Amino acid sequence: MNLTNYRINTERLHKTIKELATFGKNEKGGLDRTTFTKAELAAREWLKESLINMNLQVKVDEAANIWARREGKASQLPAITFGSHIDTVPNGGQYDGALGVLIALEVMKVLEENKITTYHPFELVSFSAEEPNPFGLSTFGSRAITGRLKKKDIEQVIDSNGNVLTEALTRAGGDPDAFESAVRSPNEIGAYLEVHIEQGKRLLNKHIPVGVVTAITGIYREEVTVLGEANHAGTTLMEDRKDSLTAASEMVLALERVCSRYPENEVVGTIGKMNVSPNSANIIPAEVSFTLEIRGKTKEEIKEVLSLWEDEVNEIQLKRKIGLQRSVLLDQAPAPMSQLLIEQTEKVTKELGYESLLLGSMAGHDATHMASITNSGMIFVPSVDGKSHCPEEFSTIEDIEKVANVFLNTLLAIDQKLITENS
Amino acid sequence: MNLTNYRINTERLHKTIKELATFGKNEKGGLDRTTFTKAELAAREWLKESLINMNLQVKVDEAANIWARREGKASQLPAITFGSHIDTVPNGGQYDGALGVLIALEVMKVLEENKITTYHPFELVSFSAEEPNPFGLSTFGSRAITGRLKKKDIEQVIDSNGNVLTEALTRAGGDPDAFESAVRSPNEIGAYLEVHIEQGKRLLNKHIPVGVVTAITGIYREEVTVLGEANHAGTTLMEDRKDSLTAASEMVLALERVCSRYPENEVVGTIGKMNVSPNSANIIPAEVSFTLEIRGKTKEEIKEVLSLWEDEVNEIQLKRKIGLQRSVLLDQAPAPMSQLLIEQTEKVTKELGYESLLLGSMAGHDATHMASITNSGMIFVPSVDGKSHCPEEFSTIEDIEKVANVFLNTLLAIDQKLITENS
Repeated sequence: MNLTNYRINTERLHKTIKELATFGKNEKGGLDRTTFTKAELAAREWLKESLINMNLQVKVDEAANIWARREGKASQLPAITFGSHIDTVPNGGQYDGALGVLIALEVMKVLEENKITTYHPFELVSFSAEEPNPFGLSTFGSRAITGRLKKKDIEQVIDSNGNVLTEALTRAGGDPDAFESAVRSPNEIGAYLEVHIEQGKRLLNKHIPVGVVTAITGIYREEVTVLGEANHAGTTLMEDRKDSLTAASEMVLALERVCSRYPENEVVGTIGKMNVSPNSANIIPAEVSFTLEIRGKTKEEIKEVLSLWEDEVNEIQLKRKIGLQRSVLLDQAPAPMSQLLIEQTEKVTKELGYESLLLGSMAGHDATHMASITNSGMIFVPSVDGKSHCPEEFSTIEDIEKVANVFLNTLLAIDQKLITENS
Repeated sequence: MNLTNYRINTERLHKTIKELATFGKNEKGGLDRTTFTKAELAAREWLKESLINMNLQVKVDEAANIWARREGKASQLPAITFGSHIDTVPNGGQYDGALGVLIALEVMKVLEENKITTYHPFELVSFSAEEPNPFGLSTFGSRAITGRLKKKDIEQVIDSNGNVLTEALTRAGGDPDAFESAVRSPNEIGAYLEVHIEQGKRLLNKHIPVGVVTAITGIYREEVTVLGEANHAGTTLMEDRKDSLTAASEMVLALERVCSRYPENEVVGTIGKMNVSPNSANIIPAEVSFTLEIRGKTKEEIKEVLSLWEDEVNEIQLKRKIGLQRSVLLDQAPAPMSQLLIEQTEKVTKELGYESLLLGSMAGHDATHMASITNSGMIFVPSVDGKSHCPEEFSTIEDIEKVANVFLNTLLAIDQKLITENS
């Protein structure tokens, strides 16, 4: 079998991209398909139906991940797994996550119509809740199947609107009581490969269509609550205030300052979420809670930036006499991708006549967690203007076609390679 | 008739304070009785029932203000009006507003049980939506009856949860279509007097139980929206960001700085409400909107502080290349209280053997708007620790008793005085 024999059906893929993009569409042209919302549940139904129609073995696991299995020559071999996620951030775009699932779906269609029998079972996976969500648990599905999210972590989680996570999970087809049965053993999965948009401009700036990911950034995230004192905005003199919002504002600016001054360019810090309480025009804010995030290629970089920020926060706290509560939400180590998958992807790209670029991922992905149990790899598609997590998120169909063909043929190459390696 | 003959029933008043405080009580011990919420509607029913049981002429006007009229010797005379409001801020206290209405209710009871016939009709009023509320319209009821809030101002107002103001108003007994029929002519009202907690420490620090208000602060309020660019918190380098939250944080601190440096102590600036969008841990905030508030005793002070803040904001905007939208929500001029009412209150206080303090109000009140159509006055009760708009808001029953007796007897004094003055 020539390794680069097969091609995806671009028109058909383009159609499914447009189709899935109707779920959660809002008036700003973005997608509101946050995990376990009505729109996301409807998208899940659409996906499951598409998979069932292809005679794949479709299953929803205890973490509500959607799986579709296509047997190979030997069922006892570990599966070659591929996919991404279909949930979005609030007012997100059509490509982040969805593209990886739809290319995986297209791969299954090509295998089927070409009656290809692979050695290994092939498994498509659509992970639950990859994006940060109101329940505060991102990469939910991949953490569940790699044993990094436990039953105790999901119990008693309630979002700010009073929605109970275990109830939402059940509605999506999950099973909170048997949650840890979702764990997949390393013996069951031989490789995991994921297509995703780059969400940056490196491919675009270099006019290279295929990004081969070498490692995924570490992400540190914590919830910080600043405790001031609610009081009347008119009758409380400036010097008598314990304003949690002015204190929080100084902390926001301290993080920006620390990261901007840090010698490494790819260490970034963000406060993307902030809630003020009681949030009334004429009350001095009593409490401000925000999510602090720091990303870097090494654990050490992240630690150093955090410590520089803490020094500034201590001063702010002392000066303003406010209280502070902190709790770590995520401390995800940087994850290197599998050398085997990197090499196979580069090889196939070359054979197909395209150029590829090795690059790190500054975004976290399900592939981070998959790397803890199997050979994990990612292929990036160029993002127009580097934009993502917004309605303007876009990738050209020409680039998508190239990456989808690289993906399809790399999966087939891995299928052969793993046999050779293990024989 | 001796002017200071009558006394309120303290025990009965205390009981109604405790009773009304059950409506909207939350688990933090505060009151969630924001305007037109279920809890506030239930409180309205309780109040109306209490008034109806006293055989007063009870009426809910087009702005959902609750009125209870007790005829005097001459119905054609303008009414002596008194009251306050029963809505609270989120997680507010038991005294702000409620105390003024309950003392007014107690006054009616005393008049009734003593079979006092006043010259003028006496009218109790409980104003709708005095506090800042999700609809962005505070002192709603008093602005409506003084012609300062028009039908067009309330049409198409929707809160962030999608609640339509006109629908909420209708549920409370108002009539959005005939909204402007709520206007009361200056001929109909001879005076307006209101008891309220001080919400500061001036009375407390001087151990004086009765505050006689000389003027009410001006309040300037605007909604500011900072327009940045949503982008991925990992893949966007620090220098490539247009972060609306870091920009907004600088604006928050600029306001604090400007007010703290301003020579006048009683000029205060607050940003009490802020909403971040899309408000997700891994997205650089696209939009931050906040409510800016400045208070001062003169229009000039407010204008000057605003202009100093604007200078700083212009620099921030230039430096960060972000967009800005501003819209004025409120520009309420400082309101002097009626000399007649001030004198009568001071006189009665002295006759009752108490000490009084002349003081300005840094909080806005319905009396501000009433001053535009009639003699308007306010009496303050000491606030323990100066706290208000929070569960800890408290005034002692001893102070309340004194002020309630001053209030009752001042109303009777005004009743006589207006006859003498106009004859």
